[in-house]
Amino acid sequence: MHVEIERKFLVDSLDAVNGTDAVPVRQGYLARGEGEEVRVRRQGEEFTLTVKRGSGLTRSECEIPLAPEQFQELWPATEGARVTKSRYAVALPDGRTAHVDVFDGRLLGLATVEVEFPSESEARAFDPPAWFGAEVTEDARYANRALSSADGVPA
Amino acid sequence: MHVEIERKFLVDSLDAVNGTDAVPVRQGYLARGEGEEVRVRRQGEEFTLTVKRGSGLTRSECEIPLAPEQFQELWPATEGARVTKSRYAVALPDGRTAHVDVFDGRLLGLATVEVEFPSESEARAFDPPAWFGAEVTEDARYANRALSSADGVPA
Repeated sequence: MHVEIERKFLVDSLDAVNGTDAVPVRQGYLARGEGEEVRVRRQGEEFTLTVKRGSGLTRSECEIPLAPEQFQELWPATEGARVTKSRYAVALPDGRTAHVDVFDGRLLGLATVEVEFPSESEARAFDPPAWFGAEVTEDARYANRALSSADGVPA
Repeated sequence: MHVEIERKFLVDSLDAVNGTDAVPVRQGYLARGEGEEVRVRRQGEEFTLTVKRGSGLTRSECEIPLAPEQFQELWPATEGARVTKSRYAVALPDGRTAHVDVFDGRLLGLATVEVEFPSESEARAFDPPAWFGAEVTEDARYANRALSSADGVPA
């Protein structure tokens, strides 16, 4: 398990992703336990299985690559717990990369942006660009595991 | 997902496994959600990842083979949620195979036996041999997911 330190925000303006190539992402949850989850993800032609523990700013994560056939076999087991989105990588002025997720389907209209940090102090010191909206790092409703079973965009 | 119909019993006498070769099994849980679980298992030189839903007699299951490296990478994420046991395959007079699990470590002294059936009616009609003990199919304490976090043999 490695530690993942990440802040998440809503997106006030999608201008920053204009002209950027999107990678289609679909992910589904094999299990959503108390404080732990296992998901499979297809991002472009990359397939992964990820175990995450905890919630909010700092989480533990273990990720392995899957063969396409492994993904195809596991995907049906995620029925009813899926999210599809387009992911954009945006270079920020401070050199970090922001990952913007524009959701599809019943979550149309929702976009979030995530930035990863090497330490909690750097995470706290981060000054979000003007196009970032409200922070939702600690808002469980915006966790993808919650969105995967939501009926629509959180109110 | 395919359906797994299985009855589980304690073992009154281990005489039936005498002279049978055991396969060492270790398995750990990546997630134990409400009504769903994801586990990795090493059985001899075979590595699998299994998603199970439901509990008791009839469950849904999806299982894929893992490469040894995939198993090794995921194993640390199962810390605190593991079971080690020796598994014996015993041919029953009716032609079915009984899988006897003799647990190790803090579960030493516990043995269970499982028999799988093609239908619930055949499962119900099954007449357990004399060496089978009390049935625990619907006793959540004897589910491996529960045993993986138990402090010892269930009372």
